[in-house]
Amino acid sequence: MSSSAVPRPVIGSFVGWHVLAEAHGVDPELLDDPDFLSNTLEVSLKEAGATVCAMNSHRFEPQGVTVLAMLAESHASVHTYPELGALFVDVFTCGDQASPERAVRHLTTALGATGTRTSTVRRGRERPVLTSTGEAFQ
Amino acid sequence: MSSSAVPRPVIGSFVGWHVLAEAHGVDPELLDDPDFLSNTLEVSLKEAGATVCAMNSHRFEPQGVTVLAMLAESHASVHTYPELGALFVDVFTCGDQASPERAVRHLTTALGATGTRTSTVRRGRERPVLTSTGEAFQ
Repeated sequence: MSSSAVPRPVIGSFVGWHVLAEAHGVDPELLDDPDFLSNTLEVSLKEAGATVCAMNSHRFEPQGVTVLAMLAESHASVHTYPELGALFVDVFTCGDQASPERAVRHLTTALGATGTRTSTVRRGRERPVLTSTGEAFQ
Repeated sequence: MSSSAVPRPVIGSFVGWHVLAEAHGVDPELLDDPDFLSNTLEVSLKEAGATVCAMNSHRFEPQGVTVLAMLAESHASVHTYPELGALFVDVFTCGDQASPERAVRHLTTALGATGTRTSTVRRGRERPVLTSTGEAFQ
């Protein structure tokens, strides 16, 4: 357990945007490198205005990495499939300070993904609505 | 960074179910207790067939807790708002071993939530589809 004086943005505002993305066409070596993925996700989140509290990564056998980011605004994750050159990305943020779409865009660009599909869900007090862009993973 | 010999289930299967939930009517003291929330989420995930690799929690000032669970199947998260008696829950699992809906049900029951809204997104190779059940948070 960790704790800090980092305040959560917009306390009492029970709404947020959750971006769910899939990307493909990425170099398998990058997708099997936990330090590279953790650093790249952290940079992407900060560039998008998020406050990163902690990063954790885990490499699986025989391949594949998960990275989780604890944010003041909520959380972000990456799950990679080097054998497919593909990954799942999640960025969930509450408040108006951070842009989850921007974080995903920065990350997939840094990874050199040739295709990305992004779905956004508005969560909280309002009824969930899903909007998707991009092509299906082939 | 951590690593282990824990294999990911169904390597090569780039599909999964992501359950996004909101629950309310929960005792604010429970929602501000990182150890209780971490333990309850971990038990719920294991009861639902998931393999938990690591748990991390963070308490914010003046209130609110985030818990992140690293799973062999992907990840789970809880973000609480004690001031509202409400929380966001995410459980994303790949493969057929774990039931994300069951994990959410176990968790919200253990918390004594009076209302839960659950949305499920099928992710990966197929086109995302969102299905929702439950009432909107009031």
